[in-house]
Amino acid sequence: MIDSGALIDLSISEAASALRHGETTSLALTQAMLARIKQTEATLQAYATVRADLALAAAERADRELAAGRDRGPLHGIPIGVKDNCYTKGIRTEVGSKVLEGFVPDFDSTVVQKLYAAGAVLIGKTRCHEWSCGGSEPPTRSPWDLSRFPGGSSIGSGVALASRSAFGTIGSDTGGSIRIPASINNLVGMKATYGRVSAFGVLPLAWSLDHVGPLTRTVLDNAHMLGAIAGHDPKDANSARVDVPDFAADIAGGLRGARIGIDREYFLYPGVVDSVRAVTIAVINELADLGAEIIEVSIPELELTRETLTTIRMVESASYHRQQIREKGHLYSPGTRATLEIGQVVLGTEYVAALRARERYRSAMKALFRRENLMALISPTIPVPAPLLADVWKPREDMDNGETPTDGFVHHVYPANLSGQPAISAPAGFSPAGLPIGYQLMGRPFDEATLYRIAYAYEQAHDWHKRQPPQVYD
Amino acid sequence: MIDSGALIDLSISEAASALRHGETTSLALTQAMLARIKQTEATLQAYATVRADLALAAAERADRELAAGRDRGPLHGIPIGVKDNCYTKGIRTEVGSKVLEGFVPDFDSTVVQKLYAAGAVLIGKTRCHEWSCGGSEPPTRSPWDLSRFPGGSSIGSGVALASRSAFGTIGSDTGGSIRIPASINNLVGMKATYGRVSAFGVLPLAWSLDHVGPLTRTVLDNAHMLGAIAGHDPKDANSARVDVPDFAADIAGGLRGARIGIDREYFLYPGVVDSVRAVTIAVINELADLGAEIIEVSIPELELTRETLTTIRMVESASYHRQQIREKGHLYSPGTRATLEIGQVVLGTEYVAALRARERYRSAMKALFRRENLMALISPTIPVPAPLLADVWKPREDMDNGETPTDGFVHHVYPANLSGQPAISAPAGFSPAGLPIGYQLMGRPFDEATLYRIAYAYEQAHDWHKRQPPQVYD
Repeated sequence: MIDSGALIDLSISEAASALRHGETTSLALTQAMLARIKQTEATLQAYATVRADLALAAAERADRELAAGRDRGPLHGIPIGVKDNCYTKGIRTEVGSKVLEGFVPDFDSTVVQKLYAAGAVLIGKTRCHEWSCGGSEPPTRSPWDLSRFPGGSSIGSGVALASRSAFGTIGSDTGGSIRIPASINNLVGMKATYGRVSAFGVLPLAWSLDHVGPLTRTVLDNAHMLGAIAGHDPKDANSARVDVPDFAADIAGGLRGARIGIDREYFLYPGVVDSVRAVTIAVINELADLGAEIIEVSIPELELTRETLTTIRMVESASYHRQQIREKGHLYSPGTRATLEIGQVVLGTEYVAALRARERYRSAMKALFRRENLMALISPTIPVPAPLLADVWKPREDMDNGETPTDGFVHHVYPANLSGQPAISAPAGFSPAGLPIGYQLMGRPFDEATLYRIAYAYEQAHDWHKRQPPQVYD
Repeated sequence: MIDSGALIDLSISEAASALRHGETTSLALTQAMLARIKQTEATLQAYATVRADLALAAAERADRELAAGRDRGPLHGIPIGVKDNCYTKGIRTEVGSKVLEGFVPDFDSTVVQKLYAAGAVLIGKTRCHEWSCGGSEPPTRSPWDLSRFPGGSSIGSGVALASRSAFGTIGSDTGGSIRIPASINNLVGMKATYGRVSAFGVLPLAWSLDHVGPLTRTVLDNAHMLGAIAGHDPKDANSARVDVPDFAADIAGGLRGARIGIDREYFLYPGVVDSVRAVTIAVINELADLGAEIIEVSIPELELTRETLTTIRMVESASYHRQQIREKGHLYSPGTRATLEIGQVVLGTEYVAALRARERYRSAMKALFRRENLMALISPTIPVPAPLLADVWKPREDMDNGETPTDGFVHHVYPANLSGQPAISAPAGFSPAGLPIGYQLMGRPFDEATLYRIAYAYEQAHDWHKRQPPQVYD
């Protein structure tokens, strides 16, 4: 049997293999997670709710099933954390908001239903920014540096995974909220194609931009998790009727013939700091060495993405919160309320103009991928390593245009929310100060498999993902 | 040979048969139309532009092709009028607006391209309300009564056909603009499923509600015309990738087993005048006699349609005209400008609320059709025969709620624009004063064929469509 101290460092795939070779049990994995949570939570506060009772019972069930020959696949018996905007039947769901304090849903979101069906053990609900929106700061801290921004809005999903208090987590991503914590926490985060993962039962931020998806420590783990949660769902009007392939099947297929585009002007703009620039270029060079063809491209429409996404998000979130803010406005923190209210003054014609700009941008992106026969676009995930918490909203000292670190985040991540195309963030290396740096691949609609294949090839060549955060919380 | 006086009364199908039996030529048909136009236009003003030169040349080409054994199908050699919001290469396209005075497009709308490909002879461009919007009255008059409303916004498409100066016409329908003139002019008008007919090159009113479609004198003619203009068009982002059946193939299939719903509370509401109510009930009884099963249904969501469609139309049309009104506002008539400008003050959240209400309504309609296994819903097309032109915008004297005739129009026609499902208007009978009354069938998405089958069965049992307008213009 693998001892409990070593269990927490296993990837999902390693744990799954250990389970099937009698080297551990789901109960042991779950107990190890619960012990780890006890050790880390006082400092890191990744979880809003941990239900040890339910997790242990689920683990025992998973073990009994495996013993009886009922094998539900790669997530069977694996402890998973789920962002607190996903409805969980019988388990508190508060989305970081006082409005939902103590709220216990009476049904499961589809993503949670699918995790259960895949045999996963729900260890707890990970903290998120209030209503998945950045108006206030949760108490969650980064295991990489307590004084630095831990990512968001799937803040607990990143921290729980990085600090080894989950084997995989579910996040959601309206404007980078899976990929930003992935990048900052040295993780793999996938925002799959819009409509690939059902959003039924997931509290929305802006429905036409919202994506639910997995964070993991390795690329293969991520492919397994996406495989478990993807698929058409009649309960979600935006769910796509597209078959779900085995994302792991060809993951080791290599890079021969892979055509990867880079728009240096946009994605390596002056806001990208030297360490991130150097690491990104190193990844590009490595991918070329591994057989990929790197194509220089130019997508002027990327400049539309920030304003367009912002208008759409403002209007859709204002629309969702309008009535509730009227009735319970005092239960919103002032910053969140302001962010969610501002969309109430946007005109219909401006929203329509944004929807049309989105179509123009999508067409341009589609045409580019077709014309250049691209499999992916590469970029940094965000232009800076995790900034100090105190600096997140301040103009950067190294920029003279008033750009804040968060301005920079959206520059790279918004494009894939607006187009709906899949985008993955994976570990690319580290800054001189030892902070993780991620790179992003944006792919063709419903071709997440190719992104996994590229990211897997890079991961095989480096072991950045194995580097752990300093044990600041001991 | 059929003499020129008799030619103008032929249906498309009859003319097509005469062409193939050597009883007439496309040139003779075209000359007969041009002569008729000369006779009627001073009074009726159905056409904005007539290009006799192009029409005669096209007719001669059509005759040469037929003589050489090249047969393009049922529209080959048939003179057709097209609403003046459809781009026609080399032919003026003004959409009733001073903004486009003298404008000659350098490409064809897809619908016109398809008519040409089907061998149709474009006889001229039919007048429409300014920008397909009701803010000013064109000079077009009704052949049924010069003092009465001739329909709109495809006003010339209805009048040209009723007065025998076209064999078929193209209209467009954002809130009834094909079905209202059809009903008022004793014609068959089809607003097919949203996306069935390409809107590429057609000047929009509100893109998510706009439909292009045919007006004809018989149901079979209509099926032939829709067959010619329907089909996926990559140039129209909203065009549906759905195969086009032969709409005429099973048109005589009869009504055995047809399940037709009626929501009496909504569609026979107090605004429906006695003559229209009596005629509609007579149609329902006749359909039952012919073998249809009449199902009483209740669709409370229909009450949402008016406000919802109005909000969407206001925002989308304001969005389209915003810049142009800024630059050329003086070239709009005041009423049209006001109608197109008002959407500029609608909030994004209100537009979003309308889009969501549309989804709720669509789901309810879909669920009803599935639950009751309906093939169609039946209703009057509009609740009154053609009102006096002087009364169109005045509160009705027989109603005490301030309802105007136009309020009544939208009650019945908006539901199918909002749902996008197909809807046909066909002759149902006449008022005691001799004014035409139409009935409407709304069908299942992309099942126009069934609507044609039902309407054909009714048409076989009556010959309302053969009754002609009084020759007021002689």
